[in-house]
Amino acid sequence: MDYYKASLIMHEKNKGKMATIGKVRVKTKEDLSTAYTPGVAEPCRKIKECPEDIYRYTNKSNTVAVVSDGSAVLGLGNIGAAASVPVMDGKALLFREFAGIDAFPVCIKTQDPDEIVKIVKNISSTFGGINLEDISAPRCFEIEEKLQGELEIPVFHDDQHGTAVVVSAALINAAKLTGRKLWEIKAVINGAGAAGTAIAKMLMDMGIEDIVVCDSHGIIDKKRNDLNETKKKLASITNKKDLSGGLGKALAGRDLFIGVSSGGALTQKMVKTMAGSPMIFAMANPEPEIMPEEAKKAGAAVIATGRSDFPNQINNVLIFPGIFKGALSVRAKRITEKMKKAAAYALAGMINEEDISEENIIPSAFMPGVAEKVAEAVAKAWEG
Amino acid sequence: MDYYKASLIMHEKNKGKMATIGKVRVKTKEDLSTAYTPGVAEPCRKIKECPEDIYRYTNKSNTVAVVSDGSAVLGLGNIGAAASVPVMDGKALLFREFAGIDAFPVCIKTQDPDEIVKIVKNISSTFGGINLEDISAPRCFEIEEKLQGELEIPVFHDDQHGTAVVVSAALINAAKLTGRKLWEIKAVINGAGAAGTAIAKMLMDMGIEDIVVCDSHGIIDKKRNDLNETKKKLASITNKKDLSGGLGKALAGRDLFIGVSSGGALTQKMVKTMAGSPMIFAMANPEPEIMPEEAKKAGAAVIATGRSDFPNQINNVLIFPGIFKGALSVRAKRITEKMKKAAAYALAGMINEEDISEENIIPSAFMPGVAEKVAEAVAKAWEG
Repeated sequence: MDYYKASLIMHEKNKGKMATIGKVRVKTKEDLSTAYTPGVAEPCRKIKECPEDIYRYTNKSNTVAVVSDGSAVLGLGNIGAAASVPVMDGKALLFREFAGIDAFPVCIKTQDPDEIVKIVKNISSTFGGINLEDISAPRCFEIEEKLQGELEIPVFHDDQHGTAVVVSAALINAAKLTGRKLWEIKAVINGAGAAGTAIAKMLMDMGIEDIVVCDSHGIIDKKRNDLNETKKKLASITNKKDLSGGLGKALAGRDLFIGVSSGGALTQKMVKTMAGSPMIFAMANPEPEIMPEEAKKAGAAVIATGRSDFPNQINNVLIFPGIFKGALSVRAKRITEKMKKAAAYALAGMINEEDISEENIIPSAFMPGVAEKVAEAVAKAWEG
Repeated sequence: MDYYKASLIMHEKNKGKMATIGKVRVKTKEDLSTAYTPGVAEPCRKIKECPEDIYRYTNKSNTVAVVSDGSAVLGLGNIGAAASVPVMDGKALLFREFAGIDAFPVCIKTQDPDEIVKIVKNISSTFGGINLEDISAPRCFEIEEKLQGELEIPVFHDDQHGTAVVVSAALINAAKLTGRKLWEIKAVINGAGAAGTAIAKMLMDMGIEDIVVCDSHGIIDKKRNDLNETKKKLASITNKKDLSGGLGKALAGRDLFIGVSSGGALTQKMVKTMAGSPMIFAMANPEPEIMPEEAKKAGAAVIATGRSDFPNQINNVLIFPGIFKGALSVRAKRITEKMKKAAAYALAGMINEEDISEENIIPSAFMPGVAEKVAEAVAKAWEG
């Protein structure tokens, strides 16, 4: 199927994908006087008296902003705010369809991090959570951190944390499948952008001690003098054996390859230098770092990709709806590490142990009950 | 009916009044690949190549932002962004219910005009029009003017222009009823805030030459030294006979009183000094400048108020849905004077000449077809 063509036709026919709709009707004078003046003055007064009442009388507790500056959209790069609207509108649709959450695209024309923070903060009254999307690294780190510092609602950069949580869930089951303990796993992450950085941090939080991260110039080590602040920090917390060199060097004897880089970055030869029964998560889109059949031939025990036409799709839609649903349900003020870990274990647990196989380490996007289970675990993990 | 209580119950029960909903479903892998990755990349690419295509592949052409800083909300005053959410959410509901327009509340925490302009400009990609609401004068004039200067979509401050258009429509029919020509009418406007100023300008545009505007200190004349820039400009274009003094002085021998001031501002004694068969539009809420029965006893030929429990309600819901519907339908870049005039005549024309009476100079809010007729006239009047 030609999804590009189908998508174009669908978008034109429907004029986008989302609409706004009333939860009440306005058919009589009485309706008008209740929903609007004079009646509406009363919930306004209540909120003015007690700011927390905004959760009581408005839709804040179920509304998420999908915020992007269009600086790193899908594989398209920096296409700006306007051209990013179909993606953010699509994300809003996924919030609605997978979690029953009301979401609205906020596509911001400026790409100045401080301006973005200021704008989102200023328009945050109607939102119970902020989903940052497709913002380029390292700006995304700064924006997320500053914005979370300013707001008492969760700010979640899905490209970072959503990906990290799904990867963690897949890893939990892949480790079971291959008989590994998490703390024994030696991992390589290829790609040190938003996703790679967040994955590295989350894997550490999951108990994985030996992680080497590579970018396009090779292993990130303390001796390199071409590193930005984020990568310097990565160098200081990963790569404990102080390896240096290329990806090939990093891979020797390792159990796990996580690719958030580009198509073809991993060769069969490299896979063969890894530990026995290696785990390969090749998530570059549309072309994975290595095609599943090639990785398998080279000895991989389990392969995951970002694609829906192969088994084990690492797909953020498995996580962000449930994370927000759970966080909103308890009015969490942020998404903590503990909540992300709970989400990863809940997602992994959607597959019964006896059903885990090399083609089944992660649920499909449409497995019923995923968002609910994740939400439940996330809500429980919030320590407000 | 206690609308305050009813409103509180309704808001709590429904958690506000608006939701977002998908125009397409996501139930299969194919749906996901069409609405989101990889398919969604194609409309993004198209918009990147040709910015106008955002109207083709997104909901921009049917989406309006309801923007407020909460600085002048209903009778509540400066209650700020958060407490204003129920009103803006209500306005969004009216857009949906009366014109089928998708609308979303944008409640802005800063009250700095330049910041507001910058924020709205930066998030405008998803919107085909901007409805400014409940922003205090004279800031609202500056914000509207600057924002319209920055954007190629209509920016419309409903408190100003919506009110002015409905007043103009009521006046067209009131003039017919009392046998007056518009250019002969001698008018007094009591109140020189957002609405009063816009009404004065629009009445001039409608052909009314003799207008005196009063604020709480009396007639606005060139000799006063307590006037802000907006009022100075009003002094220079109104009050051609250079009257000075109080409202009583202004009213002597005049045909029309328009009140956007406060309850009880107009006395029977004052009405008696007006020209024979005067027209009284007493729009202060909830208490009019003069109660209809009193005005009638004092000789008024026709009385309009802002209240739904009296005949002739001057209600903006008669106008803003149709104005936006019409402007969006032709992708107007702004709302021109000509479009506003066309809207006023279309609204007035909803009442057949033979049906015009002292209790029927303006349609009720729920008269079928109003938004469509207004939209048609507005679209026709756009000279793009």
